[in-house]
Amino acid sequence: MAIKTPREYVETLKDGRVVFSDGKRVNDVTTDKYLKLRVGMHMIDYAFAFEPKYRDIFVEEDEDGEPVSFVYVPARNANDLLRRREIIQLVSRTCYGFPGGAKFTGIDALNALTVVSRRIDKAVGTKYIERVEKFRKLLMKNDLSVVAAVSDVKGDRSLRPSKQIDHQDYYVHVVDRRPDGLVVRGAKTHISGAPCANEILVIPSRRHTEEDKDYAVSFSIPANTKGVTIINSSREISGQGNDFDDPIFSVRHGGHGTVIFDDVFVPMERVFLNGETVFSGEIAYMFGDFHRLSGDAYKYAQLEIMIGAAALMAEYNGLEKANHIRNKLATLVIYCEGVEALGRQACVDCVLEPEFGLAYPNPLISNTAKYFFANYYHESLKLVEDIAGGLVVTSPSGKDFDNPETRDLIKKYFGGKHGIPSEHRLRMAKLVKDLGASDYDVCTIHAEGSLEAQRMSVYTLADFDRYKAAARRVARIDQKPHELFANLPKFPVPGFH
Amino acid sequence: MAIKTPREYVETLKDGRVVFSDGKRVNDVTTDKYLKLRVGMHMIDYAFAFEPKYRDIFVEEDEDGEPVSFVYVPARNANDLLRRREIIQLVSRTCYGFPGGAKFTGIDALNALTVVSRRIDKAVGTKYIERVEKFRKLLMKNDLSVVAAVSDVKGDRSLRPSKQIDHQDYYVHVVDRRPDGLVVRGAKTHISGAPCANEILVIPSRRHTEEDKDYAVSFSIPANTKGVTIINSSREISGQGNDFDDPIFSVRHGGHGTVIFDDVFVPMERVFLNGETVFSGEIAYMFGDFHRLSGDAYKYAQLEIMIGAAALMAEYNGLEKANHIRNKLATLVIYCEGVEALGRQACVDCVLEPEFGLAYPNPLISNTAKYFFANYYHESLKLVEDIAGGLVVTSPSGKDFDNPETRDLIKKYFGGKHGIPSEHRLRMAKLVKDLGASDYDVCTIHAEGSLEAQRMSVYTLADFDRYKAAARRVARIDQKPHELFANLPKFPVPGFH
Amino acid sequence: MAIKTPREYVETLKDGRVVFSDGKRVNDVTTDKYLKLRVGMHMIDYAFAFEPKYRDIFVEEDEDGEPVSFVYVPARNANDLLRRREIIQLVSRTCYGFPGGAKFTGIDALNALTVVSRRIDKAVGTKYIERVEKFRKLLMKNDLSVVAAVSDVKGDRSLRPSKQIDHQDYYVHVVDRRPDGLVVRGAKTHISGAPCANEILVIPSRRHTEEDKDYAVSFSIPANTKGVTIINSSREISGQGNDFDDPIFSVRHGGHGTVIFDDVFVPMERVFLNGETVFSGEIAYMFGDFHRLSGDAYKYAQLEIMIGAAALMAEYNGLEKANHIRNKLATLVIYCEGVEALGRQACVDCVLEPEFGLAYPNPLISNTAKYFFANYYHESLKLVEDIAGGLVVTSPSGKDFDNPETRDLIKKYFGGKHGIPSEHRLRMAKLVKDLGASDYDVCTIHAEGSLEAQRMSVYTLADFDRYKAAARRVARIDQKPHELFANLPKFPVPGFH
Amino acid sequence: MAIKTPREYVETLKDGRVVFSDGKRVNDVTTDKYLKLRVGMHMIDYAFAFEPKYRDIFVEEDEDGEPVSFVYVPARNANDLLRRREIIQLVSRTCYGFPGGAKFTGIDALNALTVVSRRIDKAVGTKYIERVEKFRKLLMKNDLSVVAAVSDVKGDRSLRPSKQIDHQDYYVHVVDRRPDGLVVRGAKTHISGAPCANEILVIPSRRHTEEDKDYAVSFSIPANTKGVTIINSSREISGQGNDFDDPIFSVRHGGHGTVIFDDVFVPMERVFLNGETVFSGEIAYMFGDFHRLSGDAYKYAQLEIMIGAAALMAEYNGLEKANHIRNKLATLVIYCEGVEALGRQACVDCVLEPEFGLAYPNPLISNTAKYFFANYYHESLKLVEDIAGGLVVTSPSGKDFDNPETRDLIKKYFGGKHGIPSEHRLRMAKLVKDLGASDYDVCTIHAEGSLEAQRMSVYTLADFDRYKAAARRVARIDQKPHELFANLPKFPVPGFH
Repeated sequence: MAIKTPREYVETLKDGRVVFSDGKRVNDVTTDKYLKLRVGMHMIDYAFAFEPKYRDIFVEEDEDGEPVSFVYVPARNANDLLRRREIIQLVSRTCYGFPGGAKFTGIDALNALTVVSRRIDKAVGTKYIERVEKFRKLLMKNDLSVVAAVSDVKGDRSLRPSKQIDHQDYYVHVVDRRPDGLVVRGAKTHISGAPCANEILVIPSRRHTEEDKDYAVSFSIPANTKGVTIINSSREISGQGNDFDDPIFSVRHGGHGTVIFDDVFVPMERVFLNGETVFSGEIAYMFGDFHRLSGDAYKYAQLEIMIGAAALMAEYNGLEKANHIRNKLATLVIYCEGVEALGRQACVDCVLEPEFGLAYPNPLISNTAKYFFANYYHESLKLVEDIAGGLVVTSPSGKDFDNPETRDLIKKYFGGKHGIPSEHRLRMAKLVKDLGASDYDVCTIHAEGSLEAQRMSVYTLADFDRYKAAARRVARIDQKPHELFANLPKFPVPGFH
Repeated sequence: MAIKTPREYVETLKDGRVVFSDGKRVNDVTTDKYLKLRVGMHMIDYAFAFEPKYRDIFVEEDEDGEPVSFVYVPARNANDLLRRREIIQLVSRTCYGFPGGAKFTGIDALNALTVVSRRIDKAVGTKYIERVEKFRKLLMKNDLSVVAAVSDVKGDRSLRPSKQIDHQDYYVHVVDRRPDGLVVRGAKTHISGAPCANEILVIPSRRHTEEDKDYAVSFSIPANTKGVTIINSSREISGQGNDFDDPIFSVRHGGHGTVIFDDVFVPMERVFLNGETVFSGEIAYMFGDFHRLSGDAYKYAQLEIMIGAAALMAEYNGLEKANHIRNKLATLVIYCEGVEALGRQACVDCVLEPEFGLAYPNPLISNTAKYFFANYYHESLKLVEDIAGGLVVTSPSGKDFDNPETRDLIKKYFGGKHGIPSEHRLRMAKLVKDLGASDYDVCTIHAEGSLEAQRMSVYTLADFDRYKAAARRVARIDQKPHELFANLPKFPVPGFH
Repeated sequence: MAIKTPREYVETLKDGRVVFSDGKRVNDVTTDKYLKLRVGMHMIDYAFAFEPKYRDIFVEEDEDGEPVSFVYVPARNANDLLRRREIIQLVSRTCYGFPGGAKFTGIDALNALTVVSRRIDKAVGTKYIERVEKFRKLLMKNDLSVVAAVSDVKGDRSLRPSKQIDHQDYYVHVVDRRPDGLVVRGAKTHISGAPCANEILVIPSRRHTEEDKDYAVSFSIPANTKGVTIINSSREISGQGNDFDDPIFSVRHGGHGTVIFDDVFVPMERVFLNGETVFSGEIAYMFGDFHRLSGDAYKYAQLEIMIGAAALMAEYNGLEKANHIRNKLATLVIYCEGVEALGRQACVDCVLEPEFGLAYPNPLISNTAKYFFANYYHESLKLVEDIAGGLVVTSPSGKDFDNPETRDLIKKYFGGKHGIPSEHRLRMAKLVKDLGASDYDVCTIHAEGSLEAQRMSVYTLADFDRYKAAARRVARIDQKPHELFANLPKFPVPGFH
Repeated sequence: MAIKTPREYVETLKDGRVVFSDGKRVNDVTTDKYLKLRVGMHMIDYAFAFEPKYRDIFVEEDEDGEPVSFVYVPARNANDLLRRREIIQLVSRTCYGFPGGAKFTGIDALNALTVVSRRIDKAVGTKYIERVEKFRKLLMKNDLSVVAAVSDVKGDRSLRPSKQIDHQDYYVHVVDRRPDGLVVRGAKTHISGAPCANEILVIPSRRHTEEDKDYAVSFSIPANTKGVTIINSSREISGQGNDFDDPIFSVRHGGHGTVIFDDVFVPMERVFLNGETVFSGEIAYMFGDFHRLSGDAYKYAQLEIMIGAAALMAEYNGLEKANHIRNKLATLVIYCEGVEALGRQACVDCVLEPEFGLAYPNPLISNTAKYFFANYYHESLKLVEDIAGGLVVTSPSGKDFDNPETRDLIKKYFGGKHGIPSEHRLRMAKLVKDLGASDYDVCTIHAEGSLEAQRMSVYTLADFDRYKAAARRVARIDQKPHELFANLPKFPVPGFH
């Protein structure tokens, strides 16, 4: 059966994988204090298929008539991209503003390979698309959780992979080529969900030159493959660990693994790039294109929560009618709905590859959308915190609220607007604390690529010829005509002025 | 013949209208030193119908099989809105970043009345829609230029129309009601293109209360109607007045008229609102919705020029490879393409009124789009000026370039990158000057409504219930279930954590 | 002996005070898991007097020839203000960017009373200054820790103190007036260090009208006074709790108490305001003036750390020569040194009250300084996080680094620039995490008054007459001459142009 | 007599200098339509000496007991720097926000040479200081107007002076060395006031390497020296040219000359640098240090006008009590007073060169001050324009106000708050237009060096060692002790936590 229940997914994780977290080896990620939080998020990716109201969105029939998860299906048009967007947002809305993670980054990598492998095959005569499609079938038929492993640990960022001084393993690379497969070494980092995934899909993190041929490699392997060690990220910054004091972080864990490949054997049928350096960058950029949009999609659900918290704090404080508060709330709404509108437009104005029947998000708009939410996030958080007030930091804990010695005092003195229970006001303040005093801001910048990465992508993608033609025309500088301007009516109108 | 040539349009303006400009009565706006620049811009609105490449975009057949200007046709769906957007951008691209103006603001007012008059008729049994449709036919069949007259002169902004102290004419209002029509008094200001329009279409600028019933009025009259006086805005800030020194302002004039109604008679068939105060705000907001999007559309063509100028100045200065320059150019592209993407999305996600078969731009996104371009304009201009350098201000004029005594010195010393003619570098610097040392920045803020207006619109339009429900759910505050959250899977997963 | 050692101070806290924290009554704040961190910070305020290099800055002789803490001495000139600034910065530099807290906010309140009580006495014939001076002597001779209790819990912010609906105790107020003293009720919140202070010095948080006369009250009482209950703020958001993972928060605790006065008796000699409503606002504003500058002073030491962390992460990642990184670092330095320069200038341009021989910080510059650091903090943090990279969030914990099973892998793969120990890079990433994923940002906005508070203070303090005179003169609008402009030479030069 | 009257100064300009402007040779700059505006500004620099109220500030006795202009005196301490600041502000306040220009940039260059020539002499045994002092005496005794000529025309900015492709004259350089002097060639640009100055003081614009030895040159010559050609900048963007429509630009002209040296002979006693490449950068930076502060000083007077205009427009529109208006005004005040406070602090914290008895502005703060006003100018202008409203662009001209046919209509309909003459409101709107639609914004960025220049200066000047030491200490990374941290008390307190 190609659709797994959340519990069935949980069972697949008990497979002997080598995971370290919080200073010790984790025997079972599904029962580990922190990692089980991440597993709980992944379960949501599986749960929707069994919700009658949402099943039609999440489930599709495959060619054998079996129900499969829609996310594995290649996007053929704008509607497919919008549907994937809806899926991400439903999961994120459920998980308090985060993507579940079971089928999130990995799908973006799969999509990138789906587009680019056709180009490689066409260009150099390889047969990668067959392998990709076979891999897709494996994922579909087994409803596997898959994460993308993209960022190399990098070492000295000013040096290319093969020029690193300490050692040459800062980027994942091939150390041995055998007839039946490759042996790879190196480490990928920031791999959210890796400790709780079934498959780890490796793609390059950058362009490569011919010198770095061994680093131009893409493949997928099960998380329990021999030689793979996953070191989990620090446990989340958490406070009391209950749903009063830490409404989000009591149930959320990033599980951002560093995945170390210590001479891992990859069978050839799972290899999707093998030295074709010219396509490394293309895969990385195509992944970025899909993934920036995924980031934009889930972020929207996070912003809904953030704005709601600000609006409620204003109300609870009796300030919902103050002009400066309304101004700030409106500014936050513009930010939030701008994120959504840009993301949707990147889908609507998608790029079609008619030859392959595939669609991918408009890369210029996808980057613009990501930049918009990442660049204005800190300033927006400032507004939220400004509205919420100092009690975000200084109010007592939920334990004090539960303590009969202090409960009545807290109820009396932490009241706000008449009719609002003090508990609601305190809980909302803690939610703002969880939003602000967290790693959200760093994630906003760095997840899906840094601001610098978007700027450089946009610089590369921008149609400067058009802009320059527009300026030259106004400055009356002779030029070769540009098609957009060549047939416009004359202006100023000849013979009139 | 329902389609006029530019010259035919010009002839219609010689109609005895009362226009003052630059301290004197203008006898013929088509030959006045400044106003003819505006007429020249309006002509572009007419010129496109005769350009084979663009005719299909600009021209439509009406029910009589006659060719008419598409802009008069009511929008029925997203494609109609996108087509109108394309029309605005083509004209703006032609006119160096400005809408022509002959059929620009007036169309937005016509569209607003088209939607709202149906609502009024339905609510209170009037027959406004018949009058609106008859008026539309007049515009179509005669291809008339029409401007919206919206902003009242307002007097003391802290007082309502009928509470003004100096006099009660700061807002246009009815001073006499006759069986065959109304007599109106007051003044509308910021009416771009009014001195060169055929029809002046008046709509309310704000909500009204019952006390201000006489101010709830909408109508259209020809510009040469008895009692109408138009005072033109100051001539544009211009320099030498040639295409070297002032590439834009040598051929552009705002023609922002203040239109004074001194007891003007309006026949009843041209009255579109007459005391139904509850709909004043609705018309004003619906106009804002359409018009903010029109602003976003033409601004895009302006930003193309601005980015092109920055990119070329960087190149001419030999700095096109500097990292900080590329960063700034990328930031400008993100701004410009964000404007476009948001504007398009406001069309794609338009609101349909199925009962009437009409469509209007998504108001939340339309306001967001306008806010986005207006709020970041000054910061973007800063980047352009930063890139361009001080010669934008300090370089000699085109006259010095033409002067044989100085020409060779200027050619020698104002060179930049090898191979770029000094003249190109100087012309481009003057273009940046024209962009920066102009009224663009004020227009960016105030045209189509101030930033405050967008914030207040967004505040009103925002779905705070949804945001609040999202936040309450995370803070574990009991609430009435919200439909978007009621059927989501349980999170955290019960019995798992 | 008027100077206490840190250990002597610690002993004073075992006085039966009623403190609740983390859901239970705290018997001894000096041994409580969280509060002892705060006590440790307070100890630094005492430690400096015994450091030979710094003793002359921290210690002064009083009139009896006894050494006393300089901070209790009233400021008489700019140098005194600069010396207090230096004291705050030395303590903050020691405590990883935080003021110690034993003699911080309380001193600002004492200074405010020192200035304003003279004005009250002069205006209405009271003798408050005698009480203030006696209280000062008590503090000096016993080297007491004193906190200011300013912010009332406030309830519904749109209602005045006596108009609250739920109850009238949202602001501290007098409920009984006895010959020998007052009985007060209410609660003050955000009182950093209150659980570990000797004296709690209460001043009004706002202006009062005659109706709210009972709320116009200022006094000081020992923290263990009958009827006083202190509820500590939530423990800090902390992670692993060691100096690797949480270099700051493993040793820092805000101890932001909510201090509840349940019909507390205050002897008359400790009452510093009693119904003189007209001076409530003046005390609050004068406190704000001193305290905003104190905030600016300690924040500088915090920013030093922040910039250092960014510069080191850039270096550790091998990116210290990248143009965009240098740009960001320079921007951070400008921010940091601007904070310092503005703060110093507020001291240099202090206001002297020659009649009383007192000095206080220039209020316009003091507010500007606070606004500057609070308004640009989030944007600056964005730059720091942008530079630092994603490992701030995703790297393993110190426990994993200590685990022999993973230590070598971590050393190998978390290396950066050649020659930098991986441990350094990880520790620095954790420092950035501690700076970013913390309550610093909220504190930056709300401690020492919100941005709105600064704006409103500045609006009140601004010399709009001067600005308006400047504009009228240029616009050639006749006006009464303003002294700054009346005697300037004529411009344009008469008879020349 | 060492103090000249404004009229005496004017006479000195009739000296046969070769100036081109507006396409023709200017025979007499004091009567030229545009340049006489600049002369009128320069006259203000001379006028103050004859204003009794200000004479003591502007005039000093020289060693011969003769009255001389104070600005020529070298700064010896903070008070001298503050006095020069006051002089700049008084002139700028008089000239509607601009420095007069007769003794402005040149003084900053003189000051830079005063400091650096001593260093050169000390380092390489030259005698430049004698020449500088002799030149100073010439200026003093004759009260000469002097401008600094710093910015070379530069050509391709990515190439060094001697590597330019088109020709090697893009930077001023020595083409012949004779026993009695040098022959120089090249062009300096952005030289504000050059057409109306007596002396042109040339200093290098950048660091030089040994290869560019001929470009390491500094000297001063009279403006009418043979071979010097000055091409004036375009006339200012001006409108109607009267004090109603263009209150500033009707009397202001930049006079930003490009000064071309066509094999000009410079006598040796006027040469202040001659191939000592290592000091080129030092002179340029020292000039920048003085000049950025001068910019900050005059800008303050400009901001006074800007804020006054915004405050008055708010009042005239009846909106002075609106919360969002007050917020914006407060933000503007913070900006303006921050500019002033930072500038003053750069003087107060000046750097003393005790060996030479000289003082110069604190370079880190001086750069910070300039960056602060330049970086936030556009955003501040946005607030002003937002407050002022659309009539800044759309209102009629002063000529229409004077026209009896329209005057009464304008008076009636352009009224604002009751009691405010419509003329005042219109004049103020035009003032905002003059501020916004001008070259102020470009000047703000580029005058006194671009934002990039400040960032790079700050990067160079910043004490990163201190910042890094602060961060390492918190991250518990062993390091060599830094003096600021070595003797601090231990934290956390050993044995306590």
